[in-house]
Amino acid sequence: MVNQELMTTMADKHESESPTLLEWAEVEKYIKRAKDAFEPYRQSSVQQRIGFLRQIAHEISAIRTDLIETSHGETHLPEGRLSGEIDRTINQIHLFAGVLEEGSWVNAIIDTADPQRAPVPKPDIRQMQRPLGPVCVYGASNFPFAFSVAGGDTISALSAGCPVLYKVHEGHPQTSLLVGGCIERAARQTGMPDGVFASLMVARDVGVQVVTHPSVTAVAFTGSFLGGKALYDAAAKRPVPIPVYAEMGSINPVFLLPDRLKLHAEATAAALVASNTLGAGQFCTNPGLMVLLQSPDTEHFLSMYGKQLAEQTCHAMLTPGIHRAYSAGVERLKSMVELSTLGEGKKMESANAAVPVAFRVSGSDFLGNSALQEEYFGPASIHVVAEDRAQLLEIAEALDGQLTCGVWCTDTDIDSFGPLFQRLEQKAGRLIINGAPTGVEVCHAMVHGGPFPATTDTRSTSVGTQAIYRFTRPVSYQNYPDRLLPAELRNGNEAGIWRKVDGELTRKSR
Amino acid sequence: MVNQELMTTMADKHESESPTLLEWAEVEKYIKRAKDAFEPYRQSSVQQRIGFLRQIAHEISAIRTDLIETSHGETHLPEGRLSGEIDRTINQIHLFAGVLEEGSWVNAIIDTADPQRAPVPKPDIRQMQRPLGPVCVYGASNFPFAFSVAGGDTISALSAGCPVLYKVHEGHPQTSLLVGGCIERAARQTGMPDGVFASLMVARDVGVQVVTHPSVTAVAFTGSFLGGKALYDAAAKRPVPIPVYAEMGSINPVFLLPDRLKLHAEATAAALVASNTLGAGQFCTNPGLMVLLQSPDTEHFLSMYGKQLAEQTCHAMLTPGIHRAYSAGVERLKSMVELSTLGEGKKMESANAAVPVAFRVSGSDFLGNSALQEEYFGPASIHVVAEDRAQLLEIAEALDGQLTCGVWCTDTDIDSFGPLFQRLEQKAGRLIINGAPTGVEVCHAMVHGGPFPATTDTRSTSVGTQAIYRFTRPVSYQNYPDRLLPAELRNGNEAGIWRKVDGELTRKSR
Repeated sequence: MVNQELMTTMADKHESESPTLLEWAEVEKYIKRAKDAFEPYRQSSVQQRIGFLRQIAHEISAIRTDLIETSHGETHLPEGRLSGEIDRTINQIHLFAGVLEEGSWVNAIIDTADPQRAPVPKPDIRQMQRPLGPVCVYGASNFPFAFSVAGGDTISALSAGCPVLYKVHEGHPQTSLLVGGCIERAARQTGMPDGVFASLMVARDVGVQVVTHPSVTAVAFTGSFLGGKALYDAAAKRPVPIPVYAEMGSINPVFLLPDRLKLHAEATAAALVASNTLGAGQFCTNPGLMVLLQSPDTEHFLSMYGKQLAEQTCHAMLTPGIHRAYSAGVERLKSMVELSTLGEGKKMESANAAVPVAFRVSGSDFLGNSALQEEYFGPASIHVVAEDRAQLLEIAEALDGQLTCGVWCTDTDIDSFGPLFQRLEQKAGRLIINGAPTGVEVCHAMVHGGPFPATTDTRSTSVGTQAIYRFTRPVSYQNYPDRLLPAELRNGNEAGIWRKVDGELTRKSR
Repeated sequence: MVNQELMTTMADKHESESPTLLEWAEVEKYIKRAKDAFEPYRQSSVQQRIGFLRQIAHEISAIRTDLIETSHGETHLPEGRLSGEIDRTINQIHLFAGVLEEGSWVNAIIDTADPQRAPVPKPDIRQMQRPLGPVCVYGASNFPFAFSVAGGDTISALSAGCPVLYKVHEGHPQTSLLVGGCIERAARQTGMPDGVFASLMVARDVGVQVVTHPSVTAVAFTGSFLGGKALYDAAAKRPVPIPVYAEMGSINPVFLLPDRLKLHAEATAAALVASNTLGAGQFCTNPGLMVLLQSPDTEHFLSMYGKQLAEQTCHAMLTPGIHRAYSAGVERLKSMVELSTLGEGKKMESANAAVPVAFRVSGSDFLGNSALQEEYFGPASIHVVAEDRAQLLEIAEALDGQLTCGVWCTDTDIDSFGPLFQRLEQKAGRLIINGAPTGVEVCHAMVHGGPFPATTDTRSTSVGTQAIYRFTRPVSYQNYPDRLLPAELRNGNEAGIWRKVDGELTRKSR
């Protein structure tokens, strides 16, 4: 997200009715409750935790109409999009419940004893993933459901066995209270310990202070670079450092290769214009940078892109602050002599509507100005025209870490641009061929993450089932009697999960 | 390891012939070579990497006699122990080569496309673990082979596909040069890229500076708290933060429960005295803290422990600095009024021989003095006698993060001390029943790690095959044509590795 957002949301508060903010002393009580909840919650049975998760989904479904109305009022996102996002949120909860049901996610590893081994007997050692402790989650402005109260961060932490302290985003406080109520009701109805979840409506400085509390063991965040980096720095300075998973956005470079442009200029432009303007461009995976090779086909593509963009309108942005930051960013780009405007969309009448815009810059000017790698959160894009293949590769090499990198190409392009694919692999968490970066599939194989500054921890993903491992650590048990072991490591393997036993994957008991 | 070690090793340098240290400008050249080696190395075939690893083991075997002689001269460790450590190092290399051979470690996940899905088609997404880039490894004083040049950190990083910059430990420079030569010869003989490995003989400040270089992508360290924390802090302050895996030692608390002591006082004391004095107590897993419940059986155990310890001698410590730090630590403990001496071993004639010693303290005095949780690297132990069960649990709760926690118990003890096992699980990476913490098995299920301050990253292990994941990150490939995918993700699954395809583990092709 745009760096300015954080500062401007503070200003926004004065534009709408301020919700009551919690003082630190009250926040400390919630943290204490989360700490106290950790032991009983992590000891709860898998079936209990699955029941809790599915009940959250049920509670959200039950107030779907209220949720759409409230969130539409707060975010200006279209009702259809909000309804789809609620579906996504519910499906995600059931996906994690399914992961717990299947059970193998704990990564059970068993090395059996060999008392006869010389020179020393081999002990029995068993390992599995265990929860870290209370997790603080900071929700996103642009996904009031899927990356907010009951979004991927909260649900993966709860699935792992960690209580969650959720810091409400200022952009949609009423929606957050409604969803928070769903989780709290679900917790009560399924007998979860008091304190397993809490919504915290706090000022920004108090939000950062939460990270420094000794009982908080991990942090998940989706938002701006400034916001995420502030949390990372606060956590790194703690007497006991903790992991911070901050997803801080990206410009999602897209490379448009010559043969593709020769054969499919119009369709390619249409797909990218649609991706860039979707949701008023307010996605972390919005394609903000296109890289092309100088040629008549490229000129044709750019002209198509400009023309298609001129037909586009965007709805109102999430907050007045985000709109101001986007407009100021566009003005800044317009004032740069090395950029020219490729095309500009239409302005809708409604307040805070974003105007899509595309710029053009030469490869050498791009390489000379690192500010052009900054994210402008909204429907803007910069099209870099490289002089030759060497410069195109140089541009790939110069990229910062990204959530995604895309290449639009044909088989012919793939044959002649081999090194490009290798370089991009080191720049992003997700690589895409002939597809738009927007639309982050919630599945097992998704990586929504990437090298810094896209995230603060490139070893993780915040979308998909692998997100659960952000909140766990391995523990090994040596020479443990069966009854003292967690169920997943006992000889009987009653749940029939996949385990690595003496180096071999098996679902058998032993 | 003991906090004082870092400072005292600087002083030690003046006691022996100083090796020539590299200046920063030379170090930069090695880092540049490592960076250049990364792309060709990560593109090398699995078979090539396996050949490289096995050749390292072969080269080490070939100079075993030289290695034992040189390392004995530098570390004073007994030749039998050094020989065993070389075996362990070689076995570890073959274990990792076996992991690469089997191939499933890459955690391949495939979610296939569904073009018919509504409202939007489902894309094909495939994920696997990919190497991070050049890794800087800092070797340990106490394991000149298994935690040094070709030890677990280096071998797991090379296995992952990362070039290694190895910072030589001052305690055994000649041994390090010999082993470094083995890796360099193996690299040449198996056609690895120039720069895939380099030994750096540098001063401490230069060693820290390496962590700040933009081309270094991860750090592994085994040593003191001060040393590990300095590297962590340097990495966290980088413009682009990187992961630091510092294993900083531990006091490895051991709880001795009443029924166990009633039935097996003598054998328990013998096992713990042996573990505490093994290798002159110079293990990160040395049992430095025992916790017992006030009773006549405890008095009997303590008296046995003291008597048995009085019969022990220890060989010379690794360096004069480590010996000075240990002796000073023991003097400090002796001067504390709340401690009494339980027993003390015999002093051998040789220079820098450690004298084993055991102290006793009450539970409330222990709880009142956090300095008693500091590690004294050497054969010292503190025995805490708790007033009652509640205080014993309070002591468990007050513990810092540990590499290991142990409990000596019978079935009767297990029945009556349930909450103790739960608390300890949150304190350590490895939990042990009725076994000594020393002896870290190299296997799949080992966790040699644990909550801070035992390590800087509780999500990792530095021993065992899972150590490889410290140097990888997940990358996902969306809509990739088969031939552009890494071999492990192609439809054919030629290597027959385990993959999660649409949520099901399988070795089949698709």
